Amino acid sequence: MIAFPSIDATPALLVDRAVLDGNIARMAASARERGLDVRPHAKTHKCIEIAHLQLAAGARGLTVATVSEAEAFAQAGFDDIFIAYPLWVDAARGARLQALSETVQLTVGIDSAAGARTLADHCDTSIGVLVEIDSGHHRTGVAPEQAGVVASEAQALGLNVLGVFTFPGHSYGPGLPHVAVAEETDALAVAAAALRDAGIDPVVISGGSSPTALIETPSVATELRPGVYVFGDAQQLELDAVTEADIALTVLATVVSARGEVVVLDSGSKTLGADRASWATGYGRILGEPDARITALSEHHATVGWPNTSTRPDLGQRVRVIPNHVCNTVNLADELIVTDGRHADAVVDRWRVAARGCNT
Amino acid sequence: MIAFPSIDATPALLVDRAVLDGNIARMAASARERGLDVRPHAKTHKCIEIAHLQLAAGARGLTVATVSEAEAFAQAGFDDIFIAYPLWVDAARGARLQALSETVQLTVGIDSAAGARTLADHCDTSIGVLVEIDSGHHRTGVAPEQAGVVASEAQALGLNVLGVFTFPGHSYGPGLPHVAVAEETDALAVAAAALRDAGIDPVVISGGSSPTALIETPSVATELRPGVYVFGDAQQLELDAVTEADIALTVLATVVSARGEVVVLDSGSKTLGADRASWATGYGRILGEPDARITALSEHHATVGWPNTSTRPDLGQRVRVIPNHVCNTVNLADELIVTDGRHADAVVDRWRVAARGCNT
Repeated sequence: MIAFPSIDATPALLVDRAVLDGNIARMAASARERGLDVRPHAKTHKCIEIAHLQLAAGARGLTVATVSEAEAFAQAGFDDIFIAYPLWVDAARGARLQALSETVQLTVGIDSAAGARTLADHCDTSIGVLVEIDSGHHRTGVAPEQAGVVASEAQALGLNVLGVFTFPGHSYGPGLPHVAVAEETDALAVAAAALRDAGIDPVVISGGSSPTALIETPSVATELRPGVYVFGDAQQLELDAVTEADIALTVLATVVSARGEVVVLDSGSKTLGADRASWATGYGRILGEPDARITALSEHHATVGWPNTSTRPDLGQRVRVIPNHVCNTVNLADELIVTDGRHADAVVDRWRVAARGCNT
Repeated sequence: MIAFPSIDATPALLVDRAVLDGNIARMAASARERGLDVRPHAKTHKCIEIAHLQLAAGARGLTVATVSEAEAFAQAGFDDIFIAYPLWVDAARGARLQALSETVQLTVGIDSAAGARTLADHCDTSIGVLVEIDSGHHRTGVAPEQAGVVASEAQALGLNVLGVFTFPGHSYGPGLPHVAVAEETDALAVAAAALRDAGIDPVVISGGSSPTALIETPSVATELRPGVYVFGDAQQLELDAVTEADIALTVLATVVSARGEVVVLDSGSKTLGADRASWATGYGRILGEPDARITALSEHHATVGWPNTSTRPDLGQRVRVIPNHVCNTVNLADELIVTDGRHADAVVDRWRVAARGCNT
């Protein structure tokens, strides 16, 4: 039986503490066995309390996507942060990075000589640099064999080049995680060799995404940066990266309309996010009801196809939604309501989404 | 020439004050000529200052989607609010509605006898009620000919039934606005007649969406509830509901990668929202560059296909993005930066997104 905590107002984001702890422990153990550091991507939870749990489980530091996320975690005392993004550093952003570097062991991404120059122009050289490589996602990053060129240019500007990183985002597609991890492994090896050929020792070789991080493959990588693994979501379910038992975050929602094989919930795109990958089977799922799918999403309505009419909830009943892409769901909320598990209904804590909206 | 205001950090939401004022005035004038009230949907802007501009232009009151949005605007002194949603009213929500009704002329939606009963059980009868009808969008609402039945049941419970409302959301598709407005017109006429047959005078007959609100059709409607019209967005462009000259809100973004016919911007789904209707030609557009399209979106990356290499911006340059669905974009931001127009670069104000995240 799935429990429905007594919460005054829906929609609300629930975090099952036991499932969360299990997800953090599993990733930590898997990485430890392989001799890999975990530097979890905090963009998923944006939450001080969860970052502390990750560090307590052995994480080396945090990954973030923006300077303002780094500022939010630095303010809470975190002192080892990698901004996994090819920042364009103007005077204003440079001043913020410089300020961060006073209290944080800070590392940032670059993927061009021009980007390296903007960093060198505005910041001192205590900030570490990782060269981003494209391992197949074709978003940002240089070709792996070009990593040595960019690294040399950065070093010539006085920057402290520590290694390379990649995001194998092409793991997001049914059947693709194993393909992506093989390409990532090759790309990191080529890039690391390119740095060595340029006379630079790659002490950090960083990869990983939630769909691939638990796939064990011999690799030159030193570090994994998964994010979504803490909560899981419907995308990870459809990629076979998690099972429903691993889903730690759900959205408590109320049925506002019910007819035949359809219910409408009060959690729409302003709560769940509007993510729907081309391969996704819907806009989200329902905990404990594997055949139900969100078939349409408005800002405050989720229309759910519910084929099993014997379990279909009625007007006013509550359900727990598994969002498609939990990172965007969390970024829409101000707090996470922590329960002591899926099968109990006690609220044990409320955690602030401290870095919500930190986009700059 | 498009101007790029001097703003320290991207991404940032810019509102062109002159375009905004023009959009508000055009809708107000069109409705006035037709003898219709405008009750703009404040979910789009969630902003006290813009709601004041709408009322100053003659709007009768505000529409919102949630109780918490109503609370945010009531706190700012707005005293005539319609919650256009078939609320399920439990004790907690009932207490909030009751409190709102002390200072606000409050109206809410119902679309079932069961929903009406929860309202009557928890609130007094000063709260007005509109019966939601389904005019073709097939989300919530009863069939138009059933409106009289639900209205009678609500009235029998002591509720103050004022009329009917619908949202012609099936206007969202190329070529569909005129189809939807015709169906909406018929549905409102049928529903109003059904109320009269049940002995209830429909003093409010409310419809309208941004793609349809400016289409002039003889109708029994008394009121329009458009939302997006204040800003426009890429969806409205693709529905031919607006031109680029009507786009009042853009997202200032920085190019972080540029190669061939592709640029990558620092405004991803956590800034723009992930909305992409099945008929949309991309995840967003670029102001002044009608052939460019956002072809892929990550949380902090927008990959843009930019076929005209002679105008393609380079690393570090800024562009202005037209988001697909501006309601979700605004709900991700804490403030709107107001400029004195597209062709100047002066920041004249900063407005807080006061009802951001108000989902309950």
